[in-house]
Amino acid sequence: MSATQDDKLLATAVALRQSFQHDAVARDQAGGRPTAQIALLKQSGLLAARIPTEYGGGGASWAAVLRVVREFARTDGSLAHLFGYHHLPLHTVLARGNTTQMAQWLSQSVQHQWLWSNSGNALSKTSSAQRAGDGKGWVVNGFRPFSSGTHVADVIQVSWENKQGQRLTGVVPAQRPGIVIEDDWDGIGQRQTGSGTVTFEDVQVHDDELLGQAADPLTPFVSLTPLLQQAVLLNVFIGSAQGALDEGRNYTQTHSRPWIHSGVARHVDDPWIQRKYGDLAIRVLAAVELAEQASATLDEIYAHGHQLSEEQRGRAAIDLAVANLYAGEVGLAVSNDVFELMGARSATTANGFDRFWRNVRTHTLHNPAEYKKRSVGTWALTGAYPEPALYR
Amino acid sequence: MSATQDDKLLATAVALRQSFQHDAVARDQAGGRPTAQIALLKQSGLLAARIPTEYGGGGASWAAVLRVVREFARTDGSLAHLFGYHHLPLHTVLARGNTTQMAQWLSQSVQHQWLWSNSGNALSKTSSAQRAGDGKGWVVNGFRPFSSGTHVADVIQVSWENKQGQRLTGVVPAQRPGIVIEDDWDGIGQRQTGSGTVTFEDVQVHDDELLGQAADPLTPFVSLTPLLQQAVLLNVFIGSAQGALDEGRNYTQTHSRPWIHSGVARHVDDPWIQRKYGDLAIRVLAAVELAEQASATLDEIYAHGHQLSEEQRGRAAIDLAVANLYAGEVGLAVSNDVFELMGARSATTANGFDRFWRNVRTHTLHNPAEYKKRSVGTWALTGAYPEPALYR
Amino acid sequence: MSATQDDKLLATAVALRQSFQHDAVARDQAGGRPTAQIALLKQSGLLAARIPTEYGGGGASWAAVLRVVREFARTDGSLAHLFGYHHLPLHTVLARGNTTQMAQWLSQSVQHQWLWSNSGNALSKTSSAQRAGDGKGWVVNGFRPFSSGTHVADVIQVSWENKQGQRLTGVVPAQRPGIVIEDDWDGIGQRQTGSGTVTFEDVQVHDDELLGQAADPLTPFVSLTPLLQQAVLLNVFIGSAQGALDEGRNYTQTHSRPWIHSGVARHVDDPWIQRKYGDLAIRVLAAVELAEQASATLDEIYAHGHQLSEEQRGRAAIDLAVANLYAGEVGLAVSNDVFELMGARSATTANGFDRFWRNVRTHTLHNPAEYKKRSVGTWALTGAYPEPALYR
Amino acid sequence: MSATQDDKLLATAVALRQSFQHDAVARDQAGGRPTAQIALLKQSGLLAARIPTEYGGGGASWAAVLRVVREFARTDGSLAHLFGYHHLPLHTVLARGNTTQMAQWLSQSVQHQWLWSNSGNALSKTSSAQRAGDGKGWVVNGFRPFSSGTHVADVIQVSWENKQGQRLTGVVPAQRPGIVIEDDWDGIGQRQTGSGTVTFEDVQVHDDELLGQAADPLTPFVSLTPLLQQAVLLNVFIGSAQGALDEGRNYTQTHSRPWIHSGVARHVDDPWIQRKYGDLAIRVLAAVELAEQASATLDEIYAHGHQLSEEQRGRAAIDLAVANLYAGEVGLAVSNDVFELMGARSATTANGFDRFWRNVRTHTLHNPAEYKKRSVGTWALTGAYPEPALYR
Repeated sequence: MSATQDDKLLATAVALRQSFQHDAVARDQAGGRPTAQIALLKQSGLLAARIPTEYGGGGASWAAVLRVVREFARTDGSLAHLFGYHHLPLHTVLARGNTTQMAQWLSQSVQHQWLWSNSGNALSKTSSAQRAGDGKGWVVNGFRPFSSGTHVADVIQVSWENKQGQRLTGVVPAQRPGIVIEDDWDGIGQRQTGSGTVTFEDVQVHDDELLGQAADPLTPFVSLTPLLQQAVLLNVFIGSAQGALDEGRNYTQTHSRPWIHSGVARHVDDPWIQRKYGDLAIRVLAAVELAEQASATLDEIYAHGHQLSEEQRGRAAIDLAVANLYAGEVGLAVSNDVFELMGARSATTANGFDRFWRNVRTHTLHNPAEYKKRSVGTWALTGAYPEPALYR
Repeated sequence: MSATQDDKLLATAVALRQSFQHDAVARDQAGGRPTAQIALLKQSGLLAARIPTEYGGGGASWAAVLRVVREFARTDGSLAHLFGYHHLPLHTVLARGNTTQMAQWLSQSVQHQWLWSNSGNALSKTSSAQRAGDGKGWVVNGFRPFSSGTHVADVIQVSWENKQGQRLTGVVPAQRPGIVIEDDWDGIGQRQTGSGTVTFEDVQVHDDELLGQAADPLTPFVSLTPLLQQAVLLNVFIGSAQGALDEGRNYTQTHSRPWIHSGVARHVDDPWIQRKYGDLAIRVLAAVELAEQASATLDEIYAHGHQLSEEQRGRAAIDLAVANLYAGEVGLAVSNDVFELMGARSATTANGFDRFWRNVRTHTLHNPAEYKKRSVGTWALTGAYPEPALYR
Repeated sequence: MSATQDDKLLATAVALRQSFQHDAVARDQAGGRPTAQIALLKQSGLLAARIPTEYGGGGASWAAVLRVVREFARTDGSLAHLFGYHHLPLHTVLARGNTTQMAQWLSQSVQHQWLWSNSGNALSKTSSAQRAGDGKGWVVNGFRPFSSGTHVADVIQVSWENKQGQRLTGVVPAQRPGIVIEDDWDGIGQRQTGSGTVTFEDVQVHDDELLGQAADPLTPFVSLTPLLQQAVLLNVFIGSAQGALDEGRNYTQTHSRPWIHSGVARHVDDPWIQRKYGDLAIRVLAAVELAEQASATLDEIYAHGHQLSEEQRGRAAIDLAVANLYAGEVGLAVSNDVFELMGARSATTANGFDRFWRNVRTHTLHNPAEYKKRSVGTWALTGAYPEPALYR
Repeated sequence: MSATQDDKLLATAVALRQSFQHDAVARDQAGGRPTAQIALLKQSGLLAARIPTEYGGGGASWAAVLRVVREFARTDGSLAHLFGYHHLPLHTVLARGNTTQMAQWLSQSVQHQWLWSNSGNALSKTSSAQRAGDGKGWVVNGFRPFSSGTHVADVIQVSWENKQGQRLTGVVPAQRPGIVIEDDWDGIGQRQTGSGTVTFEDVQVHDDELLGQAADPLTPFVSLTPLLQQAVLLNVFIGSAQGALDEGRNYTQTHSRPWIHSGVARHVDDPWIQRKYGDLAIRVLAAVELAEQASATLDEIYAHGHQLSEEQRGRAAIDLAVANLYAGEVGLAVSNDVFELMGARSATTANGFDRFWRNVRTHTLHNPAEYKKRSVGTWALTGAYPEPALYR
């Protein structure tokens, strides 16, 4: 996709973000489902932006898609998350599906502007399956936590462990009987991501819905999923920081009053306020640079497809870990500090500025920074890349 | 009050804190009034602890009272705030009241275990008064924001500006006709402090309820109010940090699972977890040392009463500013970072661990750290103490 | 200059850096003049790299030249500084010289591989001049501090104030009679930059050596000098951080022993060491991204020459301030922290690892970070660019 | 020792510090031996201050002695170190010596105002001994690194490993034949501590010079040495921070000029300068509070002597680790940051302000902060104290 197309995508995202912003605070408080917003997302065509053109999709770059994630997160971390994570099962189809599956799932996804999600949390081994009585397909039972997006998805990626403890995965329509969305997500942030439990009660997974086999090797290309997760999350963090800074700036200019002992007529003339905005802006800009660099690397290596080498994957893993770590720290710092620049009257639930901190705080807890730092440090010291694995 | 008496006070506070803890999360979410808890507070006798013994009070030290504030804040920043700020109008009675007023108000306060509060926000000039028609007393109209505690108080300190723009202050029973608690407090934290608006509709303030005159000089002793505020708030910050660390530790030990790539059997054996708890514990301990030092200075200078010199007041102002600044930073850091030590599952509204951050974040916005830092720095550079003023 | 040419420049710089490294520690201790190294620099052709091709120079981009600065600073901040600052008087010739002056000075500079320097510290008004007796040229007297590079330069830019307090500037051969290099530079770092005093004793400046007139307006293009300074310094900071990390990594891997209570066989396996290298590496990578971004902006705006608008200049000012601030913080942090990763035996004068901290510490004091942060913050808040001025 | 006696000690220390200050910068550059200063120290009587009164000493508290360490470090970290570490072999005599040894060594030490030092670095197993030919005493050969103070000491504690790898220790007069001070200390800081190598060439250690036996259990009291080390070092760190701040303040007030864009007439009126001094002052004050608290704990537990329990020792270990960690961070931060408050002209070798950073940087590398943080964190999490061991 050319730069012009990327610009169009971003313009679409900006318009959507402005629309999401109208009731972002109310929806954050309500939790539940951003139904109207998902409808707008479908109308926008963005859900097919990254599907390869051969299946009718937009063929957009990861860089473009991740900029959309960032844009949404400026006001609504949940929609940013849902849109970003939508691309993880799509990747699994590309990486593990056969030609027929790709053609079928991806073309239909474009046609119907499906939203995909995943209910196969990798740290949880709480669902299992048996071959169906007729030997065709599987019958899945159990549950999975942290099933973000399943509450609004059209297609759900499901996973289970077979008797050997190996993990299998498939994709099924969200309406498939036996899939129960528990609606028990209770996070302090990312309130409309529906990241709660999905229960499976005799859920049929047909053979042609199974993506790959349990015995398939974890190739570098298949193992990109944790990197894609990190790519999405880091852009949620940065977008949240940008949004907090946007709203802070607006409030500072229009509502904040100079401190009684400041000796200045306007709050924006206080050297304290200037310095602090400078400090936060610098960090956000650094985060954006690292994010763009990581996106570029991701696009570069993704193009290798199944030929992707471990070293190429490793380089992207480092770039993404670096960008993710930096983004997480910036997201927390900005969303915490910006209150000091707005003042005591800003910290109300009506203003809802605290949603940025709650969103980043919630999301940065997945995949601990400590371990990513160790991976980056080991690479910096020895040149060794992290071995592909869950969360790595 | 002897050390033994201080110990008894603290023991009482610990018992109350444990009681408050049962529904602290639910009450944080509900906001409104901690009615049952205020009743327990009255039964405990703590509301009279610092009233001088000559009026039947406990004569406790500021150090002891502020330890109680800290103890409450380990689970409930609102009750800590209410209890702490209760002492500000009591100080005004001691500093500006005449002998008769002191005897009357303080003795009755002990007798009825009154809770005091203040509705005279000093940054707001939104209430005025006229002499009553019969020339006896004043009739107050207008409103005041940030009137913490008025929703549960027995006695309310009110303030207004006369025609010359001078500020007058008085104390009245909370039931006095015309006092309307708007119940519009909407802070993201300190949810049960009722820090919203109080409207005054022809509120009578009798002459003997007026504390001092508009023309009274701002003596060092009278000007201790902003220091007492800082003393209360800093102990709310530290208690919040301690509470976050307490709940974090408990969760880490009982719920957190070792990270998949950690190679340790128990989360507490991960060097990351150990180091980070060490880091947070060190800062909390430093904050406590500074707080205790500041409390000791406060007790020392308070004993001078009306003979207090500007220099003595200045020394306390520096000690309190130092302790307050440090406590604020620690409160924010601990309440933010502790989530990393507990993990992704900890960040739920049911757990309510985020209330510590919301409480400290809300409260640290009053009286900006920047200006207190400048005061401390000016003193460090030149030895000059901050001139007594609002928030200083 | 194409990417290939940029690569050649960098390869040349790498070879030189390796050469400089042999006695970098000894030269840091000795101070004085890096005579042999300057000779190598002349042989390398790098001194003409950025002179426009029309005068026989290499026409290299600012990005390429600043990468050379960074490369040198990995081992020798002084040579990085001298090489970088060489480009400031060259810019003044391009910005203020007439066609004849450009042709003459730049062509000769290429031919003789001259090293340029500046002795006209803008904060100092300590030299003045009178018209020569024959009405041709000026006679300069006085002195200037912080005259980096004059001790090894071939051409020196000099400045003085006329009677109206206006500043004039010219360029003269370093051998011009009356120019006395005081060799009094005593900085704790950047020891071979010769940043001491130059005294002028009846120094003749011919009319054709004068660059522009006192009354010339400060156009955006002319006012790029402080931005170029910031560009050079920020790359010295980053190179210093990279060098400290390089030497640290090498030492950690070859000399450091695991801590007695670590339970690991190799120091590089200690999670502490891994995390900390990760932490430092991330910050260095962010600094590099911001530096490259700022260099690109500089190249982009520089191409406008005298048509440069204030807004274009302003955008570059922000990019450079952001990169400079970030680089300064990273330089200090890495050069301080890296010792912890090497251990107690590393901190010897023979190892000389402390030169990185001393270099960055010395250089970050020029042009205070605080004021650049305020400029960035004002821009972030209001969109206003800093007004062109000294150090801005 | 009463408070008055403590005050006298401190007054003596202040006078000595002022004397040390005259040539502290020159001696830092020269390295070698602070001979004249050691002579003053002996005249002052401070070397006997902590020796129990029953042996003629001053019986001073650890708190008083450590305040002297802090006072010296305000200008001279080396003398602070030498004075502080003097108390470690004295402790070994008290903890491992028999009654006769105590009487003899301590009384003579008072009488002659001996300076003690240690050449038995515990991480090094590079000296061994054999029983002397006549079966009386030992003959030690080998060497030890990091033998701080041996270059100026009267009595040296030596250590060696026997054939079973057990460590033995003794004290000998510094003049004992075969003790060779290599004078090879080359640290970037603490330049006059003589922390280089001592070589042992057939050094006789008489049986009555041996302190304890190899098989002696490591009782809590004996194992206090690492805590005493930490106590000394932390006070060196804090004193260094205080000294940097003292000299910075003096320079800021007398030499620094307001920044050209500051709009203030005096540098001390710049809010930036005020805030930053405030920030540094707060941290130094917190460090002092923690140090005083740790000293008090040390005095309290030391009084138990051989009856000291592991738990009591553990409590002190935590208090000291907390104070040490905090002090190290503050020492580095203040000695690095203070330059920004003084400005570019301050960073000269003639001013020598960088010695504070070099001193703290050198010293904080012994006993890594990381491991002390883990110990504190483990205690904070589980209540477990660190097991007594080297550096713990």
